Amino acid sequence: MWFSSDNAGPAAPEVLEALTLANHGYAAGYGNDEIMERVRNRLRMIFEAPEAEVFLVPTGTAANALALACLAEPWQTIYCHRNAHIEEDECGAPEFYTGGGKLCLLNGADAKIDPAELEKAIHFTARAGVHNVQHGPLSITNVTEQGAVYTQAEIQTLTAIAKAHGLPVHMDGARFANALVATNATPAEITWKSGIDALSFGGTKNGLMGVEAVIFFAPDKAWEFQLRRKRGGHLFSKHRYLSAQMEAYLTDDLWLRLAQQSNAAAGRMAEGLRSLDHVTFLHPVDANMMFVNMPRQVHQSLHDAGANYYFWPGDQSLDGPANEMLSCRLVCNWSTTDEEIDRFLKIVAG
Amino acid sequence: MWFSSDNAGPAAPEVLEALTLANHGYAAGYGNDEIMERVRNRLRMIFEAPEAEVFLVPTGTAANALALACLAEPWQTIYCHRNAHIEEDECGAPEFYTGGGKLCLLNGADAKIDPAELEKAIHFTARAGVHNVQHGPLSITNVTEQGAVYTQAEIQTLTAIAKAHGLPVHMDGARFANALVATNATPAEITWKSGIDALSFGGTKNGLMGVEAVIFFAPDKAWEFQLRRKRGGHLFSKHRYLSAQMEAYLTDDLWLRLAQQSNAAAGRMAEGLRSLDHVTFLHPVDANMMFVNMPRQVHQSLHDAGANYYFWPGDQSLDGPANEMLSCRLVCNWSTTDEEIDRFLKIVAG
Amino acid sequence: MWFSSDNAGPAAPEVLEALTLANHGYAAGYGNDEIMERVRNRLRMIFEAPEAEVFLVPTGTAANALALACLAEPWQTIYCHRNAHIEEDECGAPEFYTGGGKLCLLNGADAKIDPAELEKAIHFTARAGVHNVQHGPLSITNVTEQGAVYTQAEIQTLTAIAKAHGLPVHMDGARFANALVATNATPAEITWKSGIDALSFGGTKNGLMGVEAVIFFAPDKAWEFQLRRKRGGHLFSKHRYLSAQMEAYLTDDLWLRLAQQSNAAAGRMAEGLRSLDHVTFLHPVDANMMFVNMPRQVHQSLHDAGANYYFWPGDQSLDGPANEMLSCRLVCNWSTTDEEIDRFLKIVAG
Amino acid sequence: MWFSSDNAGPAAPEVLEALTLANHGYAAGYGNDEIMERVRNRLRMIFEAPEAEVFLVPTGTAANALALACLAEPWQTIYCHRNAHIEEDECGAPEFYTGGGKLCLLNGADAKIDPAELEKAIHFTARAGVHNVQHGPLSITNVTEQGAVYTQAEIQTLTAIAKAHGLPVHMDGARFANALVATNATPAEITWKSGIDALSFGGTKNGLMGVEAVIFFAPDKAWEFQLRRKRGGHLFSKHRYLSAQMEAYLTDDLWLRLAQQSNAAAGRMAEGLRSLDHVTFLHPVDANMMFVNMPRQVHQSLHDAGANYYFWPGDQSLDGPANEMLSCRLVCNWSTTDEEIDRFLKIVAG
Repeated sequence: MWFSSDNAGPAAPEVLEALTLANHGYAAGYGNDEIMERVRNRLRMIFEAPEAEVFLVPTGTAANALALACLAEPWQTIYCHRNAHIEEDECGAPEFYTGGGKLCLLNGADAKIDPAELEKAIHFTARAGVHNVQHGPLSITNVTEQGAVYTQAEIQTLTAIAKAHGLPVHMDGARFANALVATNATPAEITWKSGIDALSFGGTKNGLMGVEAVIFFAPDKAWEFQLRRKRGGHLFSKHRYLSAQMEAYLTDDLWLRLAQQSNAAAGRMAEGLRSLDHVTFLHPVDANMMFVNMPRQVHQSLHDAGANYYFWPGDQSLDGPANEMLSCRLVCNWSTTDEEIDRFLKIVAG
Repeated sequence: MWFSSDNAGPAAPEVLEALTLANHGYAAGYGNDEIMERVRNRLRMIFEAPEAEVFLVPTGTAANALALACLAEPWQTIYCHRNAHIEEDECGAPEFYTGGGKLCLLNGADAKIDPAELEKAIHFTARAGVHNVQHGPLSITNVTEQGAVYTQAEIQTLTAIAKAHGLPVHMDGARFANALVATNATPAEITWKSGIDALSFGGTKNGLMGVEAVIFFAPDKAWEFQLRRKRGGHLFSKHRYLSAQMEAYLTDDLWLRLAQQSNAAAGRMAEGLRSLDHVTFLHPVDANMMFVNMPRQVHQSLHDAGANYYFWPGDQSLDGPANEMLSCRLVCNWSTTDEEIDRFLKIVAG
Repeated sequence: MWFSSDNAGPAAPEVLEALTLANHGYAAGYGNDEIMERVRNRLRMIFEAPEAEVFLVPTGTAANALALACLAEPWQTIYCHRNAHIEEDECGAPEFYTGGGKLCLLNGADAKIDPAELEKAIHFTARAGVHNVQHGPLSITNVTEQGAVYTQAEIQTLTAIAKAHGLPVHMDGARFANALVATNATPAEITWKSGIDALSFGGTKNGLMGVEAVIFFAPDKAWEFQLRRKRGGHLFSKHRYLSAQMEAYLTDDLWLRLAQQSNAAAGRMAEGLRSLDHVTFLHPVDANMMFVNMPRQVHQSLHDAGANYYFWPGDQSLDGPANEMLSCRLVCNWSTTDEEIDRFLKIVAG
Repeated sequence: MWFSSDNAGPAAPEVLEALTLANHGYAAGYGNDEIMERVRNRLRMIFEAPEAEVFLVPTGTAANALALACLAEPWQTIYCHRNAHIEEDECGAPEFYTGGGKLCLLNGADAKIDPAELEKAIHFTARAGVHNVQHGPLSITNVTEQGAVYTQAEIQTLTAIAKAHGLPVHMDGARFANALVATNATPAEITWKSGIDALSFGGTKNGLMGVEAVIFFAPDKAWEFQLRRKRGGHLFSKHRYLSAQMEAYLTDDLWLRLAQQSNAAAGRMAEGLRSLDHVTFLHPVDANMMFVNMPRQVHQSLHDAGANYYFWPGDQSLDGPANEMLSCRLVCNWSTTDEEIDRFLKIVAG
């Protein structure tokens, strides 16, 4: 019963098979391996973007920070949601990689950026000429940090505001597959066709060991990205082991199947919890995460049974009145089983 | 009728005299001049801090950013008011000098930090271990950017919160003299005796040409500061011309007299405006600045008469209904004359 | 016949087995997995350093730059050999991670630092007080970039100079195992017992997919390192896959056996080449690399047969007089076979 | 008898007069003052460059580091002489302002860059693709740190090499006036007509209190420069006091007259020293500096008489054999008198 994070689960078996297959003989290093050539072409097809540039890095923080550093000058501010991963969970990586840039924190329900907030913030940034930091890129997180998925129209509304001011747009897609399978859109439709310039295309949370792709839909930043990646220590000498994981991920729609599994697991979990009177939901359950309120005594029972998940926010505790409602985050991953869910639900039901 | 900023006015005549006196023969460079020795001793006496380290830099932005870089690690966040100069008017200098630090923006009336906000923010920062940026220094602006002056008790309340978490405290005293003469406290009482570790001691806004002192009340950061100052291009070879200005400033209480003059001018202006029904105040007038609402037609009349000041916020304009209230900032400086004020008041009175 | 680099070969089978074993069920992320606990203890035992702090990162550049950033201030210079990896092959990663530090380039035969050069450079750095960058750490590469291995005495001579000036010492041990098995010393003897404070303990070039350990023999920099690692995007969420590789590496002396294999392969290759009159050696062959001069026509024959290796320096080419001597680098790895070597030698013999 | 540096002398009286004149009434801040408008136009005329952008900063280090940061990416190397001020006397300011760039140190007699060294270094930089730092700007110091002045042809030879590789060129002209009056060329001829893109146009060493201009001959970097200047804390609020100094400097050829005076003083000093058998010269005396060897006993006599200058290099001392030759640097400034020189010469003559 691990629902702490989608990165707590194992890698998909196909990934290990691919590593095993890749582990024969010699291969060119530093991204010049043959598998990478196939990965690049495959992602270009999937995104209907024949000129896109594709690079692999080992972590989502690296993907986001390196991509943003290519889009933002050191004296610019990056517009993002107040709860975005780049603000809350990367220990200042964007500030470090941009050379001292800022984040401009925006509000919005379910960790989606409110377009009016974005418009207001852009307007405000421009007020003081050289004295202020300047307009920089917009960064949209999809799936959001509160489990919501943007509709294509919502993405377009935000990117239209950015584009009206000439600003590039980044998408943090650490859970891009989970977002995609939750919509009726194609990969292209919720990215470059909706104004996204650079995408952090997540793999780690969805069944890889530690691989993310950064996709630039226009190729002009490709060389800068490569220099920043090398300089950041993220260019793998034995790059084939990143490539092989990503190739497996993209083969036979594995990435989509894994995301469907984790979204379905979360759906089953949410359905079960919704039927219980003492459980309430804080946000919509659009993908593979949910945020719920439950009485402390339920949390105690789950704890006693060994369930693993986080209070959200983290400063709540098991000490206190039994009936007080405490909020938590529950995340399913591709390997979550019906048994785990049902066992969890049974305990919550009491 | 220039009320745009206290840096629009001239330098005090004593300052030019001191420059002239200093401009004879040779002098050791880079802060080793004899005048600097006297300045250091004088500031130590004024602040009753015989171990304090004192350095001169040419701008307030340099003073703040260099001081903060000595107090904050690159992975820390600096707590400050949402309207602090370091956030709004330094184009990211603190982020640049700290090597990618963050600012944590706090609310509070009259641009004073609300202690509850500080406590909450510190609590929130600590939530996620290595994933988050870490606790860093507190920075208090006194006079605030909205013209208010902290009481000694207010300063102590804020520094006590910081100290309880082991955090150092910086004061942005670009208008320190204006704040001081507005209180019944000594320089020591509203700085190190109230928990301030480093002070940006402003001179430029109060009658110098471009000199600020950075005072560290404990000497342990002295050498680091000197290296950061040099590396930032702020160590003057012909340092005597900074020293001479500061010496004049500290001689015969010139700094206090200049601040009294600008505060008194603002008092006269405020008194006049308060007597008018169509003028309202947004913040207390504690020092030499005021923020008032006046009908557009009044602004038009002032504009036609050549009055120079800023709408605040800056996105308001003279186009629109005559009776709509528009807010502005009015700043007096040491050289502001009664005639200027009275002429201004007469126009506002209509 | 790939002799281009030890990172062109495959990972050891034991590493894949370990990944497979680790890939079951859930595990705590971000370095809190149980395997990491064992890795830490194992490395502490191997290095006889019960207080050492151990961290894993995916690349050698990350290991070096992060370790050095913990040892150097932004205004310091890092003493290293002119041909060190941190100077020549990391695209400025140390300058990036230190926040604008410098490298001070030293000469010395076989890419070993000449102690007199180090002494002279340290002396020279100190000449100008605040105007100069300041003394920073010494970084020693072992195996050197020209294939030589430092004796314990040589390491001690260098570290003694650094210590006399209070400077910390880093060892870039990307090929640490190859260096170790080439000496009669213990891991402790050629590291902390000889004055090394932080070690980049390489795995990738010696049979892992992409894992290096950073070992701090004194624990005071541990938390800073973790923050820098996170901020650099090098903290793996699914950390168990790094841990598992490193555990396999340390189990049953795999790391030593792999290094012995590659050193032995290089020995066989060197012995064969030494018997040929038209081949000369540029540096000693202490570990798994050699640098040799051979006539262009020999390079042409090798090229035609599909041999893969680098001219060294890289600006030489196959176009030109047949008998002109061209220099190249040849690197063996753990998987290099006698057949490969003998086939190569046969072509060189002509 | 101060020959330690041209920054040890006073400012020219015209500069103080200009400050006094400027110190009346109100002025727009932050470079928007009317005097600055005149300074800009005057420098455009002097340099025959109507599109040039001109900015003022308080120190030479700021001028160099800010200019270079606009010309270099963080992952590039700046080509400069091994003894350049940016390498030896700015405590890493270029590395700080570029965000972690490198300096590539070149040899050459009299601190002039040897063109063959530049060509070789550029060739070498390009060797390793993404693994290396990349080509960046060339920075030429004129007058050099050893007192030599480049001929126009020498400048053109260096810039032609840079331009052939598409690299921009910066000139550190901290002593630009001294270089100019030592040649038969116009300001335009030894700058943009010879391939210089950005110039640090020194004022401080030649009679100002602390003002340097940065001139970009093409305007495309103007806005970036302004943001970097603000962010670096180098944008003066009371900017008129920088402008006024620079205007005085450019009026009635004051800048040229001051430089002629200091060069002439150095000429008189050099002529006197050349007539003495026990004095030898290390470098040509092209401008206002000379480097000479004299017996220790002569240095002792000068010391006893209160002469102020530096041993060069600085690690020599008065302790030792009386006849040992020790090298020193002697710098004249605009205010150096014949009496000072003759008194110095008399002591040296013994």
